Amino acid sequence: MTANFKHPHRIDRLRAKIEEEKLDGILISSGENRRYLSGFVSTAGWLFVTKANAVLCTDFRYTEQAGLQAPGYRVDRIGGKLDWMSKLFVEHGAKQVGFEADHITVAQFDRINEAMKDVKDLPSGTQLRPTQGITLGLRAVKDAEEVNLLSRAIQIGDEAFAEVEKTLSPGMTEEEVAWRIEQAVRVRGAEAISFDTIVGSGPNAARPHHRAGSDVLREGQTIVIDMGARYQGYCSDLTRTVVLGKPDSQAKKVYDIVLAAQLAAIEMVRPGMTGAECDGIARKVIQEAGHGDAFGHSLGHGVGLEVHESPGVGPSSPGKLQENMVFTIEPGIYITGWGGVRIEDVVVLENGRARVLSKAPRMKF
Amino acid sequence: MTANFKHPHRIDRLRAKIEEEKLDGILISSGENRRYLSGFVSTAGWLFVTKANAVLCTDFRYTEQAGLQAPGYRVDRIGGKLDWMSKLFVEHGAKQVGFEADHITVAQFDRINEAMKDVKDLPSGTQLRPTQGITLGLRAVKDAEEVNLLSRAIQIGDEAFAEVEKTLSPGMTEEEVAWRIEQAVRVRGAEAISFDTIVGSGPNAARPHHRAGSDVLREGQTIVIDMGARYQGYCSDLTRTVVLGKPDSQAKKVYDIVLAAQLAAIEMVRPGMTGAECDGIARKVIQEAGHGDAFGHSLGHGVGLEVHESPGVGPSSPGKLQENMVFTIEPGIYITGWGGVRIEDVVVLENGRARVLSKAPRMKF
Repeated sequence: MTANFKHPHRIDRLRAKIEEEKLDGILISSGENRRYLSGFVSTAGWLFVTKANAVLCTDFRYTEQAGLQAPGYRVDRIGGKLDWMSKLFVEHGAKQVGFEADHITVAQFDRINEAMKDVKDLPSGTQLRPTQGITLGLRAVKDAEEVNLLSRAIQIGDEAFAEVEKTLSPGMTEEEVAWRIEQAVRVRGAEAISFDTIVGSGPNAARPHHRAGSDVLREGQTIVIDMGARYQGYCSDLTRTVVLGKPDSQAKKVYDIVLAAQLAAIEMVRPGMTGAECDGIARKVIQEAGHGDAFGHSLGHGVGLEVHESPGVGPSSPGKLQENMVFTIEPGIYITGWGGVRIEDVVVLENGRARVLSKAPRMKF
Repeated sequence: MTANFKHPHRIDRLRAKIEEEKLDGILISSGENRRYLSGFVSTAGWLFVTKANAVLCTDFRYTEQAGLQAPGYRVDRIGGKLDWMSKLFVEHGAKQVGFEADHITVAQFDRINEAMKDVKDLPSGTQLRPTQGITLGLRAVKDAEEVNLLSRAIQIGDEAFAEVEKTLSPGMTEEEVAWRIEQAVRVRGAEAISFDTIVGSGPNAARPHHRAGSDVLREGQTIVIDMGARYQGYCSDLTRTVVLGKPDSQAKKVYDIVLAAQLAAIEMVRPGMTGAECDGIARKVIQEAGHGDAFGHSLGHGVGLEVHESPGVGPSSPGKLQENMVFTIEPGIYITGWGGVRIEDVVVLENGRARVLSKAPRMKF
């Protein structure tokens, strides 16, 4: 019954969730979830999925494209008013309808409820029920097609980094480095960078999310480059820390600690561990080296259609890591006034172990 | 009292709104609003503004940067828990606190309310009150600095379009055109394109938001190019429709109607008109030419830190256009199977008239 969809097993998994949650149907509003479940790529539109049916609702701008991209879905053209929603519920006899509470704003929810009041034949007891993370949960475990697309995105990122890394020299601005990376990523077929490239040199590297600016690269300082390519929607995420010329005395020491923390987590992570347990492996290495306070972010995060998605891999991530989950492992140490070091790779849990998807070489001192 | 802020008059206007809404303070969560009010550029953080104080709350990754970018704000470092929020309310004696209902999700709102329950010394009657569009309303009317930044973004877009337009030839793919535009925009100092460039050739041009794909440009067909540059956060937005070689018989006819509609709206729009009235000027021209059904989107939209923001300029935009508002005027006609035409410029209302900010020449047949 789902064979005509682009990704039949994703619909099957969603429908199993709908049943588990005792819902008659679910409204999908998030763009990435819409794409994941239907193949439809756009900035606007809704999916309404029940046990037996699937409808894609979008406006005039996208209806033709939706028909082409989302086989298996009936495409309904909607306008700005929200009356279509209740009509769909009535048509499909759906009384308990889930919505994405982690995507719909408070104001949208009020408007939807207002619109439902105006519909006269809505069966009593019809109710929008908040759900959280249902599709995000499905997305956390990647299928083979997704691992392929992610691997391609990561390969593009690796190649782009290798190409640009060779050209780095003192006096080049951070912005120039970021732009070279973006060009290198794009000429290799990525549709975009997956987030604003971070190039933090010297003291700027102490800010984990510093944007590339007009400061110039200097010898001896650490330069943190955090970059990603987006390929057919899938995001890569890679961080390398490099030094031009001879590293200053602190750089080697800090780098070795971060690298040891990363390798420990890659080596020891197992399906069945919580995200927090995985985080703890690397954090312990950094804490024991006396830099615990300087590692103020999570060890990692899931990667897929979004550059940050499930699973969480931080000190307060209770969820269990599972086979075929894909996530980053990226410890860092940041020292205000001096700089920082971060090393990040994307791994997939396969056959009970982490397989590192990135192949970009790590700097050796 | 606001002199030490980066944009003192924006804080003054916000505080006047806080007073008008009888609020003791307001929580700002939207990234663009945060940037507009503080100068702080990031993917995470909150502002809490009262009549007398202003606090910027962000996590470890951004605290150092926040101190540099947002003078006038006290910077508080927060973690993943939401307990800081109630503590701020208590510290500042704020009982009626506005939040951005058009940005906060239903799930976030629930979490915030849960967190507030746990705070023991929260005065009874402390309440989060939904607000909508307060800062967006301030942003709709641009100050001189904003018009300058927008003009620079638009100039970059104009120059990039002119450069790439000269190189268009049959057989080039839409994607290649989009990438050339992006490169041309970036080498001129834009930090990014402001949205995925649209290059719709032939039948693809019938889909107003077609993404650039692998189809090739052909002689005689219309090619809709919709592009933008982002400069210091501000977005340009430009659409030109071009034809390689001799246009087919339909192209000239449709083009002339769209152009007449656009010029009519640019000529006749006045402060004090509603967005709907402005939309109606162009729509009437297209309707009278017999293509009313083929113009299925709004005439325009505000442009600023976001590529779509207030004011609305569509058939159901009741708000009045005001002096110093900046918005697009972009009528179009789309015919399935054949293609489409859209012409778009950004205007600012000045001295009672629209001044066109874009200088990119329009095609002449």
